Amino acid sequence: MSIAYYNGNFCDFSNVRIPLSDRCVFFGDGVYDAAIGKNGAVYLEKEHIDRFFENAERLKIKLSLSKAELSQLLKEVIKKNSFEEYFLYFQLTRTLGERLHAYTEDSGSSLLITVKPHKLPPHEKKLKLITTEDIRYRMCNVKTLNLLPAVLASKNAEERGCDEAVFIKDGFVTECAHSNIFAVKDGVLYTHPNGPLILPGITRKRVLFFCDRLGIEYKEKEFTKEQLFTADEILVTSTTKLCLKADEIDGVKISKGNAKFSVSDAIMQALREDFLQL
Amino acid sequence: MSIAYYNGNFCDFSNVRIPLSDRCVFFGDGVYDAAIGKNGAVYLEKEHIDRFFENAERLKIKLSLSKAELSQLLKEVIKKNSFEEYFLYFQLTRTLGERLHAYTEDSGSSLLITVKPHKLPPHEKKLKLITTEDIRYRMCNVKTLNLLPAVLASKNAEERGCDEAVFIKDGFVTECAHSNIFAVKDGVLYTHPNGPLILPGITRKRVLFFCDRLGIEYKEKEFTKEQLFTADEILVTSTTKLCLKADEIDGVKISKGNAKFSVSDAIMQALREDFLQL
Repeated sequence: MSIAYYNGNFCDFSNVRIPLSDRCVFFGDGVYDAAIGKNGAVYLEKEHIDRFFENAERLKIKLSLSKAELSQLLKEVIKKNSFEEYFLYFQLTRTLGERLHAYTEDSGSSLLITVKPHKLPPHEKKLKLITTEDIRYRMCNVKTLNLLPAVLASKNAEERGCDEAVFIKDGFVTECAHSNIFAVKDGVLYTHPNGPLILPGITRKRVLFFCDRLGIEYKEKEFTKEQLFTADEILVTSTTKLCLKADEIDGVKISKGNAKFSVSDAIMQALREDFLQL
Repeated sequence: MSIAYYNGNFCDFSNVRIPLSDRCVFFGDGVYDAAIGKNGAVYLEKEHIDRFFENAERLKIKLSLSKAELSQLLKEVIKKNSFEEYFLYFQLTRTLGERLHAYTEDSGSSLLITVKPHKLPPHEKKLKLITTEDIRYRMCNVKTLNLLPAVLASKNAEERGCDEAVFIKDGFVTECAHSNIFAVKDGVLYTHPNGPLILPGITRKRVLFFCDRLGIEYKEKEFTKEQLFTADEILVTSTTKLCLKADEIDGVKISKGNAKFSVSDAIMQALREDFLQL
């Protein structure tokens, strides 16, 4: 179905086998990143590879290849599959023979790369959101495999017929289970500042880049759940969907405000074009 | 070296192989439990199996066997190995073909059981502790595979020549990276109440059982980092060590107080005897 890479070997996704010395099995002791691409290329590749290396460094997991070598390997996996547009996933995990919390200095690492077909969702799709308490650890800026709170919140959203769960911490909006979130009010874009409570999303950063370019004002500033419900527009960003509008939270329709110029539309269009130019 | 069990098959630990459909690989989407035992038996087996089932239920991971069947399977794994005393580990993970945050209703589960030789540490061993900020999620009462903060804190303790890391949340002592903790002051034992911030340790519960039996007063009540440093005695409990005293935190020696009767010694002895009677 799709060819994956694991520690030097290429084989079908369904045939990859992980030994117990790979600490993803016992501890979620690893980091990952994901990107989309087309025609053999990877969108915002440098940003994704840089973040992957930074996260490995944060957990002190040793990488046995350079950024250039990883880039080449990603291309190789893409080439072995014949998807026009794709979702690329890569994870680095610590390896150690025994199950011990404290890893040893001679711990190695495993590299897994998978790819699957991917299509951007239609521009017109409006997301339905739920809100849920943010119970996650204070290390959300590191993209690790400790993803259970995101798994449970995503499932909860799905069970309620929604697309994403918005995390609320002490009354403030942090981010979503696997997306960043922006509220637009009076033409200004608000999003939670980077730090241990959110992932420094690459699409999030790209949105801010386009805000600068398009002359849209933005504030990286905490905003409350109430401010989310009274926003003119809500934008949800992630690698797989780039940028989509949400029009409902917890069953409540979001007002469209009175603005003639839709900040969201401008940003969505800019991002789509950016991807298309890849 | 040791025979493990994974999904119906027995093989050497080093030969167990996990497919990518096992969501421990991507999300840490699983629960586990661990117990010690000797001569074919498992210490506090009912408590460990009950907790394992409760945790699976919390994450809605389907078990395909009953408690009695799990008990029998654990015994079988023990029998296939010839360790006099042992550490038994069992984990249940959700399985699903694709990597999607929201699992589907038809998700199955995988069961892994491993065992290795184990000896209780000598009674006289005194633990050295460090303190560290508790950045963990608010779901510490569920024994999941999202263990990175515990991994990093354990490594941090080890690098500083210590045995365990004490988590401090908003000035209060919650528990350790893989142990519960008690402070003794004026003959009274204090420990953090159960709830989302700590694991409801089975050895912790056993300590309270023996407090009742021995007429030792205890309070399940939050206590501060300062109260820990000025405790007469500090007790650290876990499955693998049962109960040991700590005599140093962050390089500071803990005063032994003036009490003639050591609450810690009485509890440690009761637990050891309890295990020996297995």
